[in-house]
Amino acid sequence: MLKGNLFTTFYSKDDIELIHESVLRVFNEVGVKFEEEEALEIFRQHGAKVEGDIVYISEALLNKALATVPTSFELVGPEGNLEIGIGKGLVVAPTNGCPNLEDWGGVYRPTNSDDLENFYKIINTSDVYGISSMVAADIPGFENSPTESALAQMAMMAKYSKKPMYNILGITPHNYKRGSAKEGARACIQLIKRYMDNFDDYVCYSGMCVLPPLTVGYDAIEHYLAFAEEKQPITITTCSMTNMTAPPSLMGSIVADFANMLAVAVMIQLKAPGLPVILSPFSSISDMREVRLMTGAPEFMMIMLGHIAMGDYYQIPIRCSGALADGFTYDYQAGVESTLGALAVALSNACILPHASGDLSNFNLLSFPKFMMDEEMLRYMKRLHQGVAISEKKANIDLIKKVGPRGVYLKGRTPKDYREETYLTTPVFNRGTCTEQGREATPPIEERAKKVFDERIASFEMTDMTQKQKDILNEHLPKKYQIS
Amino acid sequence: MLKGNLFTTFYSKDDIELIHESVLRVFNEVGVKFEEEEALEIFRQHGAKVEGDIVYISEALLNKALATVPTSFELVGPEGNLEIGIGKGLVVAPTNGCPNLEDWGGVYRPTNSDDLENFYKIINTSDVYGISSMVAADIPGFENSPTESALAQMAMMAKYSKKPMYNILGITPHNYKRGSAKEGARACIQLIKRYMDNFDDYVCYSGMCVLPPLTVGYDAIEHYLAFAEEKQPITITTCSMTNMTAPPSLMGSIVADFANMLAVAVMIQLKAPGLPVILSPFSSISDMREVRLMTGAPEFMMIMLGHIAMGDYYQIPIRCSGALADGFTYDYQAGVESTLGALAVALSNACILPHASGDLSNFNLLSFPKFMMDEEMLRYMKRLHQGVAISEKKANIDLIKKVGPRGVYLKGRTPKDYREETYLTTPVFNRGTCTEQGREATPPIEERAKKVFDERIASFEMTDMTQKQKDILNEHLPKKYQIS
Repeated sequence: MLKGNLFTTFYSKDDIELIHESVLRVFNEVGVKFEEEEALEIFRQHGAKVEGDIVYISEALLNKALATVPTSFELVGPEGNLEIGIGKGLVVAPTNGCPNLEDWGGVYRPTNSDDLENFYKIINTSDVYGISSMVAADIPGFENSPTESALAQMAMMAKYSKKPMYNILGITPHNYKRGSAKEGARACIQLIKRYMDNFDDYVCYSGMCVLPPLTVGYDAIEHYLAFAEEKQPITITTCSMTNMTAPPSLMGSIVADFANMLAVAVMIQLKAPGLPVILSPFSSISDMREVRLMTGAPEFMMIMLGHIAMGDYYQIPIRCSGALADGFTYDYQAGVESTLGALAVALSNACILPHASGDLSNFNLLSFPKFMMDEEMLRYMKRLHQGVAISEKKANIDLIKKVGPRGVYLKGRTPKDYREETYLTTPVFNRGTCTEQGREATPPIEERAKKVFDERIASFEMTDMTQKQKDILNEHLPKKYQIS
Repeated sequence: MLKGNLFTTFYSKDDIELIHESVLRVFNEVGVKFEEEEALEIFRQHGAKVEGDIVYISEALLNKALATVPTSFELVGPEGNLEIGIGKGLVVAPTNGCPNLEDWGGVYRPTNSDDLENFYKIINTSDVYGISSMVAADIPGFENSPTESALAQMAMMAKYSKKPMYNILGITPHNYKRGSAKEGARACIQLIKRYMDNFDDYVCYSGMCVLPPLTVGYDAIEHYLAFAEEKQPITITTCSMTNMTAPPSLMGSIVADFANMLAVAVMIQLKAPGLPVILSPFSSISDMREVRLMTGAPEFMMIMLGHIAMGDYYQIPIRCSGALADGFTYDYQAGVESTLGALAVALSNACILPHASGDLSNFNLLSFPKFMMDEEMLRYMKRLHQGVAISEKKANIDLIKKVGPRGVYLKGRTPKDYREETYLTTPVFNRGTCTEQGREATPPIEERAKKVFDERIASFEMTDMTQKQKDILNEHLPKKYQIS
């Protein structure tokens, strides 16, 4: 069990108070732009000052909304449930990726629906991930859905998911032709509800991005409102860049982003009090030489910890950070940067570590090899999250006496303390002896990761579905993926 | 500036008290074995209970010794001084390595004196390292010293060092033939004093290992006493393995090791009150499948943080951890494991991060490519160590108002806040755009690191020495390395 929170290394209590006061000043002096009439009307009805599409949130209204935010909730999956929230432990979720892939053997190509199948199999045979994430959205392979591409993608996720599901699908006129963004989002949720035959619990969890600085766009609001109407948990995401869509200082970035996300949480609580909301920042510095977001940067870790500190302050669950490296491949740099991002969550009370595997080049590249390597790094994170067992017994004083100075501890059976406290790594990582023989017996990390990947894909077994469940998914799945 | 210490994430105040009480119990109920008569006599003279070669240290004697331990000191180098200690900031030191090398291009071979020259050049042209470390000891190339191999190795370090020096040379009958271990160690110190023409300050800093569990061997004691007699700072190192030379639990490992190191600190303070001592643990779990120390393990980070917490409690400076990866090469695993080890020190008030670069395979392998990659990772650590600037001004509220919702921050000159708070990485790491063109323009990390290595070697300029200084070193240097 952890005894503290990593964010206290960077933020004092006074710092957190000052960030809070700055958020209030932004709510009061700048406001947040909501580019959709229904949202503005919700705020008006609750007495907020609304000028044009700018909403000003008073401290009283903020506190009213915060009072109904649940600190945790249960997400129900096809073969198991998951508690998510403050004090509910570390939930690790794989990436919600992107249209480009680093395949095995150094090949770069577009991600397609067959890759998605493999990712789902790896995720749903893993001891690391709590959530089955839609790893990539709107990639080739779903054009031939008998209904809509959006529904086909939801059905594909459901087909391979044993764990509770998380989707990142934004509805567009391309993936849902028969109705509005809100109607499309509701249709996606309803598909999962029918597949799960569960209309009461939280079964379809999703996220959508605001438009920094301090703006919430039309489509995102429609998405948020769809989830509020369907009574499903919603994540409010942001991804700003300092000196571009955020102020130039790290503190300014935290203040502006937190206000932006929090304003949406207020709107959702006013519309559906008690609905689970999670704030999910991925903002970082921009590297002005590349004019790009840099999520592998050390500043990213510090910005993430600022948001985690604020989530702790407001007691609102935070999902943030990730193993988000900046380079093009699973090299030393990827190891460094992924570790920093993962640690921000593993050593704090944030509730979900998303984008925990496979990410490269700032959300622009997915990687099979890195996905498998990240999974092993994440086991290190889980070991760290367990912390150090401290007790009079764990001091081993009697044993220290018995063995004495210059004695040897290794005797007979492996002691319980060793077994309880020692994590022995999988073959993806190497702890061998570096002799010539040892080197010959040890293939490079990519080969070791590929072997584990192949074994896991082979080990995957489909969920046992009723004919009705199969019919519900087959209605939308392209022929190739239909379940017999 | 950091606002807290990473160790509080793992250890509560009560935990630290319990470790302290356990250390006292070990001192009282088990004792520490000192395998040298002079050391035993020091303890006897100060009223400690000594039975055979087992020393029992009372709380009163411990407190007396702790009262004279300086919390910091200044180390004087050929071209600059360095403050080391609690509250003096993060000092990064490269590895004190080993006889095997991963060279550029995937070649594994024994380390030799020419490699040492290159390492010294990289270290002494770096913005990262505060200390010029003896990177490897007793490697081929010093057999032809006109005097003694030990003195030749000291002269070699001095020849290339601009920064304050740290050596790891243990005197043996092979590297110093003309006298005892203590005489050899004193001769080494005196050589540096004469070269520096400084007989008053701290100019030659060194470390030596105890013999866990709870033992201090003869040679090590001679080494410690030599430094006490020459009034030079000394590091007390340990490197135990759980369930082998340490108890099986992490807490037991911390208790036994801390007592072992602390007992030596007490001895040194009794002999030379006020002499700087630093405790330097590198202990970790053993992987019982390999029966080897595992410093890349997540448990290593937690054990290190336990020692840092105890150093903070006793107000005794700690030098520990490092970028100590377990594998054979600079791969993803090396990035992960090096980052964990480095963070333990970078996010706490330990005073030196040693073994910060080039280490692989648990102290068994040095690597040129990893050395250069670690250096860039260490710049990330330095950025993290700076922390987040928090103030009313840094909240950027006026700018947030001016830019407004949906506005753009990028305008005109790069703002001061961005320049102050944003670290832009060197070419060793890659933040480019992953297009086909971007990939073609970006060589792999090893090539990028090699380019930086070559530039740095070429940029090295020798220290401006007097003829007397040259003579002092040339007396011991093999012909090949003599200074003209």
